[in-house]
Amino acid sequence: MSASSLARETADLLARLGVADSAHAGGSLAVTSPITGERIAEVRETDAAGCDAAIAAAEAAFRTWRLVPAPKRGELIRLFGLELRAAKADLGRLVTIEAGKIVSEGLGEVQEMIDICDFAVGLSRQLYGLTVATERPSHRMMETWHPLGVVGVISAFNFPVAVWSWNAAIALVCGDTVVWKPSEKTPLTALATQALFEKAAAKAGAPAGLSAVVVGGRAIGEALVDDVRVAAVSATGSTAMGRAVAPRLASRFARAILELGGNNGAIIAPSADLDLVVRGVAFAAIGTAGQRCTTLRRLFVHDSVYDSLLPRLRKAYASVTIGDPREAGTLVGPLIDKAAYDRMQAALQKARADGATVHGGERAREDLGGNAFYVRPALAEMPAQTEVVRTETFAPILYVMRYTDFDAALEAHNAVPQGLSSSIFTNDLREAETFLSARGSDCGIVNVNIGPSGAEIGGAFGGEKETGGGREAGSDAWKAYMRRATNTINYGRDLPLAQGVSFDVE
Amino acid sequence: MSASSLARETADLLARLGVADSAHAGGSLAVTSPITGERIAEVRETDAAGCDAAIAAAEAAFRTWRLVPAPKRGELIRLFGLELRAAKADLGRLVTIEAGKIVSEGLGEVQEMIDICDFAVGLSRQLYGLTVATERPSHRMMETWHPLGVVGVISAFNFPVAVWSWNAAIALVCGDTVVWKPSEKTPLTALATQALFEKAAAKAGAPAGLSAVVVGGRAIGEALVDDVRVAAVSATGSTAMGRAVAPRLASRFARAILELGGNNGAIIAPSADLDLVVRGVAFAAIGTAGQRCTTLRRLFVHDSVYDSLLPRLRKAYASVTIGDPREAGTLVGPLIDKAAYDRMQAALQKARADGATVHGGERAREDLGGNAFYVRPALAEMPAQTEVVRTETFAPILYVMRYTDFDAALEAHNAVPQGLSSSIFTNDLREAETFLSARGSDCGIVNVNIGPSGAEIGGAFGGEKETGGGREAGSDAWKAYMRRATNTINYGRDLPLAQGVSFDVE
Amino acid sequence: MSASSLARETADLLARLGVADSAHAGGSLAVTSPITGERIAEVRETDAAGCDAAIAAAEAAFRTWRLVPAPKRGELIRLFGLELRAAKADLGRLVTIEAGKIVSEGLGEVQEMIDICDFAVGLSRQLYGLTVATERPSHRMMETWHPLGVVGVISAFNFPVAVWSWNAAIALVCGDTVVWKPSEKTPLTALATQALFEKAAAKAGAPAGLSAVVVGGRAIGEALVDDVRVAAVSATGSTAMGRAVAPRLASRFARAILELGGNNGAIIAPSADLDLVVRGVAFAAIGTAGQRCTTLRRLFVHDSVYDSLLPRLRKAYASVTIGDPREAGTLVGPLIDKAAYDRMQAALQKARADGATVHGGERAREDLGGNAFYVRPALAEMPAQTEVVRTETFAPILYVMRYTDFDAALEAHNAVPQGLSSSIFTNDLREAETFLSARGSDCGIVNVNIGPSGAEIGGAFGGEKETGGGREAGSDAWKAYMRRATNTINYGRDLPLAQGVSFDVE
Amino acid sequence: MSASSLARETADLLARLGVADSAHAGGSLAVTSPITGERIAEVRETDAAGCDAAIAAAEAAFRTWRLVPAPKRGELIRLFGLELRAAKADLGRLVTIEAGKIVSEGLGEVQEMIDICDFAVGLSRQLYGLTVATERPSHRMMETWHPLGVVGVISAFNFPVAVWSWNAAIALVCGDTVVWKPSEKTPLTALATQALFEKAAAKAGAPAGLSAVVVGGRAIGEALVDDVRVAAVSATGSTAMGRAVAPRLASRFARAILELGGNNGAIIAPSADLDLVVRGVAFAAIGTAGQRCTTLRRLFVHDSVYDSLLPRLRKAYASVTIGDPREAGTLVGPLIDKAAYDRMQAALQKARADGATVHGGERAREDLGGNAFYVRPALAEMPAQTEVVRTETFAPILYVMRYTDFDAALEAHNAVPQGLSSSIFTNDLREAETFLSARGSDCGIVNVNIGPSGAEIGGAFGGEKETGGGREAGSDAWKAYMRRATNTINYGRDLPLAQGVSFDVE
Repeated sequence: MSASSLARETADLLARLGVADSAHAGGSLAVTSPITGERIAEVRETDAAGCDAAIAAAEAAFRTWRLVPAPKRGELIRLFGLELRAAKADLGRLVTIEAGKIVSEGLGEVQEMIDICDFAVGLSRQLYGLTVATERPSHRMMETWHPLGVVGVISAFNFPVAVWSWNAAIALVCGDTVVWKPSEKTPLTALATQALFEKAAAKAGAPAGLSAVVVGGRAIGEALVDDVRVAAVSATGSTAMGRAVAPRLASRFARAILELGGNNGAIIAPSADLDLVVRGVAFAAIGTAGQRCTTLRRLFVHDSVYDSLLPRLRKAYASVTIGDPREAGTLVGPLIDKAAYDRMQAALQKARADGATVHGGERAREDLGGNAFYVRPALAEMPAQTEVVRTETFAPILYVMRYTDFDAALEAHNAVPQGLSSSIFTNDLREAETFLSARGSDCGIVNVNIGPSGAEIGGAFGGEKETGGGREAGSDAWKAYMRRATNTINYGRDLPLAQGVSFDVE
Repeated sequence: MSASSLARETADLLARLGVADSAHAGGSLAVTSPITGERIAEVRETDAAGCDAAIAAAEAAFRTWRLVPAPKRGELIRLFGLELRAAKADLGRLVTIEAGKIVSEGLGEVQEMIDICDFAVGLSRQLYGLTVATERPSHRMMETWHPLGVVGVISAFNFPVAVWSWNAAIALVCGDTVVWKPSEKTPLTALATQALFEKAAAKAGAPAGLSAVVVGGRAIGEALVDDVRVAAVSATGSTAMGRAVAPRLASRFARAILELGGNNGAIIAPSADLDLVVRGVAFAAIGTAGQRCTTLRRLFVHDSVYDSLLPRLRKAYASVTIGDPREAGTLVGPLIDKAAYDRMQAALQKARADGATVHGGERAREDLGGNAFYVRPALAEMPAQTEVVRTETFAPILYVMRYTDFDAALEAHNAVPQGLSSSIFTNDLREAETFLSARGSDCGIVNVNIGPSGAEIGGAFGGEKETGGGREAGSDAWKAYMRRATNTINYGRDLPLAQGVSFDVE
Repeated sequence: MSASSLARETADLLARLGVADSAHAGGSLAVTSPITGERIAEVRETDAAGCDAAIAAAEAAFRTWRLVPAPKRGELIRLFGLELRAAKADLGRLVTIEAGKIVSEGLGEVQEMIDICDFAVGLSRQLYGLTVATERPSHRMMETWHPLGVVGVISAFNFPVAVWSWNAAIALVCGDTVVWKPSEKTPLTALATQALFEKAAAKAGAPAGLSAVVVGGRAIGEALVDDVRVAAVSATGSTAMGRAVAPRLASRFARAILELGGNNGAIIAPSADLDLVVRGVAFAAIGTAGQRCTTLRRLFVHDSVYDSLLPRLRKAYASVTIGDPREAGTLVGPLIDKAAYDRMQAALQKARADGATVHGGERAREDLGGNAFYVRPALAEMPAQTEVVRTETFAPILYVMRYTDFDAALEAHNAVPQGLSSSIFTNDLREAETFLSARGSDCGIVNVNIGPSGAEIGGAFGGEKETGGGREAGSDAWKAYMRRATNTINYGRDLPLAQGVSFDVE
Repeated sequence: MSASSLARETADLLARLGVADSAHAGGSLAVTSPITGERIAEVRETDAAGCDAAIAAAEAAFRTWRLVPAPKRGELIRLFGLELRAAKADLGRLVTIEAGKIVSEGLGEVQEMIDICDFAVGLSRQLYGLTVATERPSHRMMETWHPLGVVGVISAFNFPVAVWSWNAAIALVCGDTVVWKPSEKTPLTALATQALFEKAAAKAGAPAGLSAVVVGGRAIGEALVDDVRVAAVSATGSTAMGRAVAPRLASRFARAILELGGNNGAIIAPSADLDLVVRGVAFAAIGTAGQRCTTLRRLFVHDSVYDSLLPRLRKAYASVTIGDPREAGTLVGPLIDKAAYDRMQAALQKARADGATVHGGERAREDLGGNAFYVRPALAEMPAQTEVVRTETFAPILYVMRYTDFDAALEAHNAVPQGLSSSIFTNDLREAETFLSARGSDCGIVNVNIGPSGAEIGGAFGGEKETGGGREAGSDAWKAYMRRATNTINYGRDLPLAQGVSFDVE
């Protein structure tokens, strides 16, 4: 498939998805497909005035939207879910082209958007607060949740649309409005998503300005972070980004929902079902070319199974099909760009210096273009959990370490600064429960017999420590998008004080 | 009562409460009672090494404590509640001496500690997470809550012990350990509380190091804020303090529970029960000499009742007994110190410059000592909500404004940077419900027919905007003291992926 | 419109809705439209063997369905919701024809089905149990909810399809299967609903037998009630029916979800907004020709507003358009049958004997057919709450009583055996809150400034006392359709006993 | 110890516990200690008039108590918990004497009362309802929980006081009042508990009549069941009793909380920790002489461990000390009476007829009195799960069956009419999770690696099928003691109808 055909396919998809030509042609931001490294669009960037206007419009829309009953807000999201269902093939394909994901993962990402819409529709008749027993006669207490305001969403290239939807579907049902800064690397899928949203909004008769996309780099992100009209910012990306963003938000008492780096480990225990392990580890470590925040990066293998597991893993690693993610059978698509490739190679070099035996990791499929960076996923057998292992490298490197003592493996597992996701493969109840316990994994996601990646939207998604502490998607993650009010109503004629205090002026 | 007798009474109380002489005699931190301005103790300060040791001990204790079953942790708190009940009179009296609160409020503060202990004991058999329906066959999902680590508590002089207890009772039941930096102005009540806690801990056979007090100034506070071993800091105080603390915590991804400034307003509607209003406003505005974070500071009075209400309020203000808070009948004790007095006078001067008619506000009871700062509470009738009104002055000034239109009053009410507490006095259902609604008060506490102060511990306590967003005490505030894990357990032999993704390596 | 045209329209609708001719032609159960009293179908009845087979099939389907992940069960309900949306006009029309509801209410009933589907879809990723703190080390406690089994649904003519959907949408998402006995008076809408469900089931690839309709009279109902394979029966109808059903279910320890009679009252207080009252009372008392379980039947009007309200109500009652419910502008359709008409007249006669002044109540629109029973809704001004007032008559009679003392009105309000729904119209906060309080209305639904009918599906629907205590639709009503398991998992090597019991055998 | 000394000890305990002599001397109901079979008291029975008066008093007290704020009701229960702590040794001893439990279990029972008090105190500031998102503008929805009324408690001899406390502590905090009919076999502990409660009530300044004991047989129970003033009855006992009680309650729409028979099984899987198993099984099967509703009665042992486990169990069974439960070292006290002994022997005879090999089961310690019925606990190795196995015999018989296939064992486990408690002992995660899953145990309590008995109060206690479906103690079991109200408040000037219905009269 020639370069020009890729650009043409992109243009066709965008047209079908409802994005105006003017938005992605002739703009200042060149968009490159990692599949071939060629340019597929030139997107118009949002300048400071445009960003200000988007926030202003979102704030204005919020004044109205917060008063629309939540189930009616839910109806908008239901209609949006129908648009996503109808456009699933196209939008999934665009994810594949812009982010380089294989077809199944591109579609899976759109499915995740659909799922969160369904969930948010259900929430729209809940948003439960509490009624609470009060110590004072003729009083009533309750807790109510109200819309918060404008929510800024800063998303990363690797989940170019799903992460936004986790935030936006919930935020919109909660009565908030949304301004979205997608990654500079993946603005097209953002524009397409916005177009689908607008279609749904028109059908729902929703007010204008509920959602906007602002395209650009760091300056645009900072504008969102520092703007007092933005009540909360949900930021997904590196820990470095989070470390820059979090204090700025904190200094103006804005809310931060941070989804930062992960360095996810798995323990393979003696009783593990190795069939499950090979499949689970391969998907978790290789899927999305190792570019998920929940990608498996560290593997602790019990001595008793190490020598039977490693050959199987090496075989899987050696045999996975690398190439154009649009093609059936491909399991490993490209890295996002050259910088990602360089960081991977640097990490492997460090690992070797630390004594690693590295399998794979080399560049592959140079036939697909000099600017396309494909690699064979790397298995790095490590003598110890050195600094490079404790550092997140956003690439398909799986560091493998041998263990004999479960408690020591658990300690090593937790001995990294990140705290996103984690797994144990075991059929031993005691090991599994220990891993799930207060002294087990210190991550926000703790799994048994599945890899660390691939969360369902029904649970709260996010992590601890340098992962930033935010939670999105299911459970009570919606509370981050609302403000809570504790109410006491006195309907009596007396004014008893709490804690038996007396204070009589008349 | 002579100066020396106050110091003697203090020493007697401390002895009865179990505080060693060495802790409060001969130290470098002079403690002054606002009642007379005289020195009542010299407390030993904690140096950097001591603070480091306290944190280290708390962290070590955490390793054990987190594995103690929560109901057994609850038993410790139950025993602590019994100690507080037994020592209520003494500890309440010490609060009166050190913080200047009237007797009823000193006792009320201890009662609040007792209440939170009861509540925390109940929590200790709950700490509910969720089990969640999963989309994958032979899988199970759940959400579990685990102990977090060391919690730093930074408290202010005005609730010298209750605020700590809200945090500590919950944190300890959650499996955390606590290091407490009380206000430099009120270390004695902290030492007494710690002594009572240790008594309970001994009876419970609890491990050492669960709770520690570190005494000192800003440097000690910063040590807590910056120490990576401290997982969360709950800080109560001014917005300025919060603005310094929050970004530092954010930069290391530690949790912040912020309870900062309030600038609490009340709307007095035409249908308000003026008997309730006079009592409610007086307690809320004058109680604790205006030094509560929930003190009522802004009053919006409907034109139709202004002229009947104001004379009654002025009469109440003119007649409240000011003086030694230990004496029966006293309703207004001293300000905490000269700086508080100066800030109050400066604010009144600004108010006058803005056109205020000020009633009261002058110094009173100079007979009680040149270093004791008593004032008559001030009613400032304002022509408009000027800047001084929008600023929190920690003193008994109530700015009164007239309104005619409810929506305009609501807008004015919300037009301050703080968002802690708020009230409406009305018997009109529509007004009350509007005030409670999404377009009503933007505070964390929203009351009807009671003043903004005097929360029960059953609700979540805290506020929005510059108040900092933290929540303490009841409802699900306990979640801030734990870490959440989302768990998926696969007990089948297949490995279905979420969102229907397929990825087959073998 | 001639008789034959109504039958023809019915046949056309059924065909469009996917019901086979054989199901509604030539059967033994004659179906009559209350609009004209003419026969519109002859439905095939289910015999004992057919009922047994339906239950057997539902039980067999349950064995599979309970293992299908809940979100996949939810997907079926989502698709069913889409079918309902697509067929809304037709199904609503069929409700109008078969039950006699006006067009807007026929459509509203289908909308309620749609709403509950949306809600159930959201539930399908929740069905939350709890994880619970345990007193024993190395133990874990949780609470899980599992599918229950076959749920029998017995519904009444007045909500011929919505009530089933409240039960079925939730039950199916919970993993149960459903056997439905609709009223003998309204089998057609049931068959149509079943056809739409089967369409959705086919699209979802759901197993066969998830839902079945059994048509017939009391014997079929008893078969459901007595069959040990039916785990729960949700029965909507009269208190007499409930009194027969409940002990039979209890004697075999099956679950009963009872939605029985209501005798719903409203208090009109001095501060009530009379514009709201007239509209609210008219809809609640007249809507569905007084044949809702939540129909307003008793009105307590404060002396101070009685004389201004009654003329307005009388005017509304005199002016509502009575007639063919298919026609625009009609507000009052027919009673369901002659027996209903007779019971209404008997009640009015009793009321008159008790001293009532009755306005309206007479037969109307005899031009529409001798077997069609239209009435002008009746206002009965009562001197006291006599026995006829305390009895539910399923017809549009509103008993009006005067009151002076609020507490006495409240007492009278509660002095009936039923406990379904209730209202107060007031702008007085104290009255409203008292009505909502522990000493207020003793009903399951307690409203302020809206009538007792017209519940949203987000709340739990049902009542106390002789209403039977069941709850359907929102909140945690889903728990009635599942079984709860309390789990304790020991993953340690010791076996500590709860409550510190010791019992050592080795 | 001579007979008279036991009666003397009883009298001394009762005196210390505050029970008046007149209540337990000279009455018509002879109380016998199963320890020796001798008479220890003659309790005054409650006649019909007395029962009526108790209910009337409870109903009158309810009118007041429901308005007392829940936290104040909680304070009563906290004080009651302190009384129980103070009297633990005495009350536990009385349980031992009257019910025959060993000392550790007698004390454990009191501890359970204490635990539920702590839990109920926590609940008293919760009793959470929900605030719910509404589809109508200017409306608010919430769900509130209100006190229910008089709760009748019918308890059994085997937990003579704990079961009452589970009900009463929760019910009283919920605002209900309680009338208690203890087993005719154990009225003394009931009287003692009531005396302790009254002591607490006096200290709390609680109104009179909150709790009453009615002593007598079936007639008294029926009076409670049939009295319309009793809103709910919580009945613990046999399935036969439940089958009599449940329909009577259902026929008057009263609530039933049923805790009936159990026939609890455990599966011992190949990977089970046999040390745990022996201890766990012995306690669960032998403890309380097999007279717990959660006693382990059926054991499914995997073929691969059967031959190593059985000898160990037989050894444990043969070696447990049988005798006076007051003596240290005794593990097996007496059966409650001769009838229990006879039923046990009949069951063993049937088992033998079915091919069982029975170990133990014979009468023991006849030296302790001809009317005292001690037995050696019986292990019955069964060739199949015959009818006697599927029947609950309230005695220490453990039926042991061999299995090879897990699914078959699971099916056999569920093939009994009762559904209270169940266990699996396994270290195999898949087995454990399957047992906990929708297709696993069908009981209300499902445990892993602990026996079926010995629940903590933090979970909901109760079972499915013929066990009756009730739930007591923790989780949301409190809801059974309250009535729920769904509230919608309209604070706007319009009256939008749900589901978009329109109905315009003016």
